[in-house]
Amino acid sequence: MLGRLNHVAIAVPDLDAAVAVYRDTLGARVSQPQAEPDHGVTVVFVTLDNTKVELLEPLGEGSPIAAFLERNPAGGIHHICYEVDDIVAARDRLKAEGARVLGDGEPKTGAHGKPVLFLHPKDFLGTLVELEEA
Amino acid sequence: MLGRLNHVAIAVPDLDAAVAVYRDTLGARVSQPQAEPDHGVTVVFVTLDNTKVELLEPLGEGSPIAAFLERNPAGGIHHICYEVDDIVAARDRLKAEGARVLGDGEPKTGAHGKPVLFLHPKDFLGTLVELEEA
Repeated sequence: MLGRLNHVAIAVPDLDAAVAVYRDTLGARVSQPQAEPDHGVTVVFVTLDNTKVELLEPLGEGSPIAAFLERNPAGGIHHICYEVDDIVAARDRLKAEGARVLGDGEPKTGAHGKPVLFLHPKDFLGTLVELEEA
Repeated sequence: MLGRLNHVAIAVPDLDAAVAVYRDTLGARVSQPQAEPDHGVTVVFVTLDNTKVELLEPLGEGSPIAAFLERNPAGGIHHICYEVDDIVAARDRLKAEGARVLGDGEPKTGAHGKPVLFLHPKDFLGTLVELEEA
């Protein structure tokens, strides 16, 4: 069912400082910051040869990464995103296996314009998993 | 400097249960468990289309993931591994930029038989970063 690793998302308190770490210290290719007000984050894409890392800074009130940064003020890996061919089929399989899908279980349009779902960390080895339709 | 994302490592308290999550619930391809006594872990490789996830269970006394699992008993993402062409050149660049390399700063032979280094999470957005020579 799982296809590519779409991205690893790292929540950071200061996007400029995070860009300096990846661009200057680690010598990676980074994008310009992109505000995603519908998702409560500003994102910078780090392009690796086979996948990407997304650096996420909270944007606006009630950002979905605000609580995580309160617990992890220096930042940390927030979630991991895997691609699936058919997100509704994936959801139905996961629910049949007893796994919990966050929210109302209906796919939403993610930051890349594709349908996404988030899965409960307690059912996935303590990791927040995003599924994105490829 | 950064090339491919080599792997994302997830520390887990129970490797059989973790394999069931990735193989049965998520429908991924998983390897047989492989004991790595020199590295204090037993590992299962999850093969994705573009990279891999490594599920790590502590092995023996003083496993390097034991303390992490005490803090995160359900498991969690332990580190992220990026490939570099030349690990000594990478280390020298990082040190010149003021970043801390863990241990004595000399590359060790990692679980894939290649030279590796670990970088200090406090200098890398709260994430433990492994560099592996490609």
